[in-house]
Amino acid sequence: MMKIKKIAVMTSGGDSPGMNAAIRSVVRTCAYYQTQCMGVYRGYQGLIEGDLVSFTARSVNNIINKGGTILKTARSDDFRTKEGRKKAHEKLLENKVDALIVIGGDGSFTGAVLFGKEFDFPVIGIPGTIDNDIYGTSHTIGYDTALNTVVEAIDKIRDTASSHNRLFFVEVMGRDAGFIALNAGVGAGAEEILIPEENLGLERMLASLKKSSKSGKSSSIVVVSEGDKTGKNVFELADYVEKNMTAYEVRVSVLGHLQRGGVPSCFDRVLASRLGVKAVELLLDGKTNLMVGLQNNKVATTTLEKAIKGNNSINMELLRVSDIMTT
Amino acid sequence: MMKIKKIAVMTSGGDSPGMNAAIRSVVRTCAYYQTQCMGVYRGYQGLIEGDLVSFTARSVNNIINKGGTILKTARSDDFRTKEGRKKAHEKLLENKVDALIVIGGDGSFTGAVLFGKEFDFPVIGIPGTIDNDIYGTSHTIGYDTALNTVVEAIDKIRDTASSHNRLFFVEVMGRDAGFIALNAGVGAGAEEILIPEENLGLERMLASLKKSSKSGKSSSIVVVSEGDKTGKNVFELADYVEKNMTAYEVRVSVLGHLQRGGVPSCFDRVLASRLGVKAVELLLDGKTNLMVGLQNNKVATTTLEKAIKGNNSINMELLRVSDIMTT
Amino acid sequence: MMKIKKIAVMTSGGDSPGMNAAIRSVVRTCAYYQTQCMGVYRGYQGLIEGDLVSFTARSVNNIINKGGTILKTARSDDFRTKEGRKKAHEKLLENKVDALIVIGGDGSFTGAVLFGKEFDFPVIGIPGTIDNDIYGTSHTIGYDTALNTVVEAIDKIRDTASSHNRLFFVEVMGRDAGFIALNAGVGAGAEEILIPEENLGLERMLASLKKSSKSGKSSSIVVVSEGDKTGKNVFELADYVEKNMTAYEVRVSVLGHLQRGGVPSCFDRVLASRLGVKAVELLLDGKTNLMVGLQNNKVATTTLEKAIKGNNSINMELLRVSDIMTT
Amino acid sequence: MMKIKKIAVMTSGGDSPGMNAAIRSVVRTCAYYQTQCMGVYRGYQGLIEGDLVSFTARSVNNIINKGGTILKTARSDDFRTKEGRKKAHEKLLENKVDALIVIGGDGSFTGAVLFGKEFDFPVIGIPGTIDNDIYGTSHTIGYDTALNTVVEAIDKIRDTASSHNRLFFVEVMGRDAGFIALNAGVGAGAEEILIPEENLGLERMLASLKKSSKSGKSSSIVVVSEGDKTGKNVFELADYVEKNMTAYEVRVSVLGHLQRGGVPSCFDRVLASRLGVKAVELLLDGKTNLMVGLQNNKVATTTLEKAIKGNNSINMELLRVSDIMTT
Repeated sequence: MMKIKKIAVMTSGGDSPGMNAAIRSVVRTCAYYQTQCMGVYRGYQGLIEGDLVSFTARSVNNIINKGGTILKTARSDDFRTKEGRKKAHEKLLENKVDALIVIGGDGSFTGAVLFGKEFDFPVIGIPGTIDNDIYGTSHTIGYDTALNTVVEAIDKIRDTASSHNRLFFVEVMGRDAGFIALNAGVGAGAEEILIPEENLGLERMLASLKKSSKSGKSSSIVVVSEGDKTGKNVFELADYVEKNMTAYEVRVSVLGHLQRGGVPSCFDRVLASRLGVKAVELLLDGKTNLMVGLQNNKVATTTLEKAIKGNNSINMELLRVSDIMTT
Repeated sequence: MMKIKKIAVMTSGGDSPGMNAAIRSVVRTCAYYQTQCMGVYRGYQGLIEGDLVSFTARSVNNIINKGGTILKTARSDDFRTKEGRKKAHEKLLENKVDALIVIGGDGSFTGAVLFGKEFDFPVIGIPGTIDNDIYGTSHTIGYDTALNTVVEAIDKIRDTASSHNRLFFVEVMGRDAGFIALNAGVGAGAEEILIPEENLGLERMLASLKKSSKSGKSSSIVVVSEGDKTGKNVFELADYVEKNMTAYEVRVSVLGHLQRGGVPSCFDRVLASRLGVKAVELLLDGKTNLMVGLQNNKVATTTLEKAIKGNNSINMELLRVSDIMTT
Repeated sequence: MMKIKKIAVMTSGGDSPGMNAAIRSVVRTCAYYQTQCMGVYRGYQGLIEGDLVSFTARSVNNIINKGGTILKTARSDDFRTKEGRKKAHEKLLENKVDALIVIGGDGSFTGAVLFGKEFDFPVIGIPGTIDNDIYGTSHTIGYDTALNTVVEAIDKIRDTASSHNRLFFVEVMGRDAGFIALNAGVGAGAEEILIPEENLGLERMLASLKKSSKSGKSSSIVVVSEGDKTGKNVFELADYVEKNMTAYEVRVSVLGHLQRGGVPSCFDRVLASRLGVKAVELLLDGKTNLMVGLQNNKVATTTLEKAIKGNNSINMELLRVSDIMTT
Repeated sequence: MMKIKKIAVMTSGGDSPGMNAAIRSVVRTCAYYQTQCMGVYRGYQGLIEGDLVSFTARSVNNIINKGGTILKTARSDDFRTKEGRKKAHEKLLENKVDALIVIGGDGSFTGAVLFGKEFDFPVIGIPGTIDNDIYGTSHTIGYDTALNTVVEAIDKIRDTASSHNRLFFVEVMGRDAGFIALNAGVGAGAEEILIPEENLGLERMLASLKKSSKSGKSSSIVVVSEGDKTGKNVFELADYVEKNMTAYEVRVSVLGHLQRGGVPSCFDRVLASRLGVKAVELLLDGKTNLMVGLQNNKVATTTLEKAIKGNNSINMELLRVSDIMTT
C-alpha cells in the first residue's frame, strides 16, 4: 500500500454552513500528521482546470465561523465525461496528490466513486448539505444551522402573522426530503407541515386549519417542503386555502437561498471538525471509498456506494408530535 | 379645555418591530401621570367593535423586546365611512376615553385626522412602520430593525453567492420609498440598488454588473425595492440580466414578510420609548392633531396633516456612496 | 391501576432555554388525550404553597420560542423536609392531581424520587439543564442553545482578541461537568480547553499557548469550565500565564448568566416537544419513576434513580479533536 | 498645495465593530478617485515599524460585515515620543504616502494632531469607538452595534432573572461616559441605570428597587456603567442591595469584551461607509486636521482639536424616560 503524503480537499455541489469548518479540520489534521495538503477550488471543475493551491495550518485561520466555502463550489459537466475525469486525474498526479477528500452531497459522491474506481485513487467523502438526505449519517454538515435559520425566519413571520390574524404558507428547502420542513416545522410550532414523504391530502390540511382557527389561534403557519406531493405549488396551495376558508388572510413566503448561508451552529462546527479528522485518518490508514458520518452520536463510516444508494429515512414520530402539538 | 383622564392607544396598518415598546411607553407614561389607559385591539376596526381593555403599568411587562403588536392590527373599511367613525366615537365615550394615540403609518394618520376633526377628539400619532416613509421624523419605529434584518439576510445570501459565483437579485420591502433598499443595500455592500426614487435604466445596471464582474468580484448582489421603476419585476430583471451577461448564474430571493418581524433593535426600543412619553405628555398638555417624531435626534412634533402630505425624502448622498463603494 | 385524569407540570432548579417548549408539549399532549393539566409555579416551593393553575392548550400559545420558564423556578428547602413534602402532597390531592411531571436536573429528580416513593405518587422527569450532566440522555433541554450562545459570545471576543493580539481566558458554565466548555471550545476554535474531567496541568497549557503563539496565531482563546481542576480560578490562571509568557496581553471574560437565557435553538425545541409527549404518554400508560431522554436520537427512558446516580460521561474524542485542530 | 497621490489608513486604540467597513470605504474611495492607498497595520506602532501594505479595491472584499479590524490595532508608547513620531514620518515618506487617515478615538486623535503639526502632514480622523464619547459626531462607529449586543445580552439575562425572581446588576462598558449604559438600559427596560454623569445615590437606588419589587415585577435589572460614581464597584453594589432588601436574590454579570466584537449593524456599516468617503474627499480637497462625523444625520466636520477637547454630552431626557418607564 502506497503511503499517503499529500491530500487534496474540495467542496462540491450546493454549499452549506460548516463546510469551512470541515476544510479547516482536514487541513489541520494533515498538518498534525505532517502530511501535505492542497485545496481544490470550484470542486471537480476546478480540479480539471488545475485550480489547486498548497494549504498550511495557517491557511485556514479564522474560517471556522464563516458560512459558505472558501474553496468555492461549482457544478461540472466535464467531470461527467471520461475525458474530464482523466484530466482531473492528471492534475492530481502533476501536483503529487495521493488522495482526495470530497465535501458535498449525493451527486458529488457519485463522481467520487466513479473517479476512485477508474483511477484506483483513494477518495473519502464528508457529507455537507443542508438537506440531511444522505444515508449513513444522522446529520449532514449544515443541516442543524439551516434548521435554526428557518426557525428564526418563521419566528419573525409569526410576529406579523399574529398581529394580523394571518395564515402563512412558508416554503423551505428540501426537493426530495422533508427533513428541514419537518424539524423546523415542529421547532417553529407550525400548524401544518407538508413533506414529500407523506401526502396528507388537501382536505385534511383544510380541516386541520379550520380546527386550529376555531380553537382560538390568532395565526397559523404551514411549512411546505419544496418537494411536497400535493401537486400544487406553495402559491396554488395558498389560493386553494383562501378560497375554502375565510378566517384568515393568506400570505406566502418563500425562504429561498438565505437557508444555505449564515454562521454555522456549534453543532455543525463540532461535527465538521470531527468528520475532518476521521477522513484524513482513514486515508492515512489506507482506507478508501468511504463516507464518514455520525451514527448514534459517534463517528462512523459507510461505503460511498451505500451512502449514495441508501435513503436517510425521516423520523415519522415527529409527524405525530406535530399533530399532538397543534391540539 | 377638558382635562384628559383616560387615554386609549392602538396600533394600525402594517405592524413593525418596536410597536410593543411604543405601547408599553404610552401605558407606563399614563401610569406615571396617574392617567387611566385602555388598549384598543385590532386598530380602528376593533375600536368600532368596542374591543377595548383597561391597561395598567403591569399589563405591558416583558413586551419591550417582542416583535409584532400585542394589540394586533387590522385594516378597517368601516372606519372609512362616517357611520363607522361615529360608532368608534360612541365606543370611546362609552368607555370614558378622552383621547386617542394611534401608532401606525400614513393611512392610519389620515383616519385619525378625519376622526379628530369630525368629533373634536384629541388624537396624537406615533409613526410606526418599517418603510420610513413618513414626513416629520427621520426614523419611524421599526425601520432600524428592518434594516438589520435585511442586512443579515443578505449576508447569508452573500455566503452562498460567493461560493457559487452567483448574481442575486434580492427584493426588499418599500412600495413607494426606497429607504430600506438604499440603506440596507449600502450596508450589505450591494453592487447595485434599484429604488423607486431614481430609475437608472437597465443598460446602466448591466454595464455596472459587467464592470463589477470584470474587476474580479466573485459574487454580486442587486437590491431591488418592491416599487422600483424599471418596469420589470425582480424575476424579469433576473431574466434580462441572465440573457445579457454570462459571467454569473443568476438567482432571485424575495425576502418578504420576515422583514416585518423580529426582536426590535435597541434604537427602535429607545425611539419608541421616547415617542410614547411625548405623545402622552402632549395630550395632557392639551395638544391634539400632532405626530411625534425624531428630528435631528430630538423628539419633535409635526401636524398630522403635514405628516400625511409631506414626503420623507431619501438621502441621495447614499446613492453616491453606493457608487463609490462598488468601485 | 388508577386512571390518570389530571397531570401537574413544574420546572425546578436552574432554568434553561427550551423549558417553555417542554411545558407547552406537556400541556398540549394532555389536551390531545383529554387529560386535565395544571401548571405549578415556582417548583416544589410553589407546590407546597399551593401555587397551581389550570392550563388549557391555549395557555401555552406563543411560548415555544421564549427563553426561561413561564412557570418560574425556585429552590425549596421546605421540600427537603418530610413535612414540606407532605404539604405538597396535600396540595396535589386538594387539586385532584394524579401525577406530576418535573422538568429540571439532578437535584429536582432526587426530590421527585423521594416524593414518588413516600406518597406512592406517579412522577416522571424531563431533563432540562444547560449543563448536559444527566445520565440517560445524550442531550438535556437547553444544552444545545447554551452551546450556540457561548460560541457566539466567543466569536465576538475573537474579533477583538485578533485585533489586539490578545489571549483571552473565557469562563463558561459547568461546575461539575465540562460539556459546555469542551463542545463550545471546539466549536469556537479555542486553543486550549480546561475541564473538570481532565487536569492537563499548568505547564502543559503554557507550552501549548507558546506553541500556538510561535505558529503565527494572532490571538488565543482558552475556554475554562467553572469547575476546572487546576486549582486556580480563571483570574489566577490569567495572572499565571501573563507572568510566564509575553507574546500576548491577557484578558479574562466570565460569560455568566447570559448562558442560561435566550431563544431556544430548533434542536432544543424539537427535543422538548418530543420528551413532553412521551412524559405524558408514560403516565397515561401507568408508568412512574422514569426520566425521558434521548438515546441514539430516539426517545428512551431511564429510572429516575439511575438518572441521578449515573454520570453522563464526556466524549474524550473531542479533546483529541481539539488538540489536532490547534496544530 | 501639494496634490495627494497616496493615502494611508490605520485603526488605532480599542477596536469597534464597523472599523472594517470604514477601512473598506477609505480604500474604495481612493480607488474611485484613482488615488493610491496603503493599509498600516497595528496603528501608530506599526507605522513606526514600517508595517504598511499597498491596498487595492479588491483588498477589502467581504470585510464590510466583519467585526474587529483587519488592520489590527495597538497602543504605542513610542509614538508618544518625538523620536517615535519622527520614525513614523520617515516611514510615510519612504512609502511616498501624502496623507493619513486615523480611525479611532480620543487618544488616537491626540496623536494625530501632534503628528500633523510637527510634520505639517495632512491627517483626518474617523471616530471609531463603542463608547460614543467623541465631540463632533452624534454617533461613533461601533456604538450602535454595541448597544444591540448589550441589549441582546440583557434580554438573555432577563429570561433567567424572571424565572428566578432575581435582581441582576449588569456592568457594561463606558469608563468615562454612560452612553452605552443609558441607551441600552432604556432599550433593555432596566429598572435602574447608573452612569458617571449622574450620581443618584445609593438610597435612591434602593428605594426605587423596593418600589419596583412592590409593584409586582418578577425581576429587576440594574445597568451599571464601568465608570459609575457611586464609589462602589458592581460587586459591592450587589452586596449592598442584598443586605438592604430581601425581595430578590442578587446576581452580577460583567459583560466585558464581547461588547467590542460582533457583526456590525446596518447603521454602523452605512455610517462607516459615509465617513470613509468624506475623509478621502477632504484630503483630496486639500483639507487637514479634521474629524468627520455625523451631525443631524448629515456628514459634517470638526477640527481634531475640538473633537478632543469637547465633550459629547449625554441626553438627559433619556434618564427621565427611564424613570417614567419603570413606573
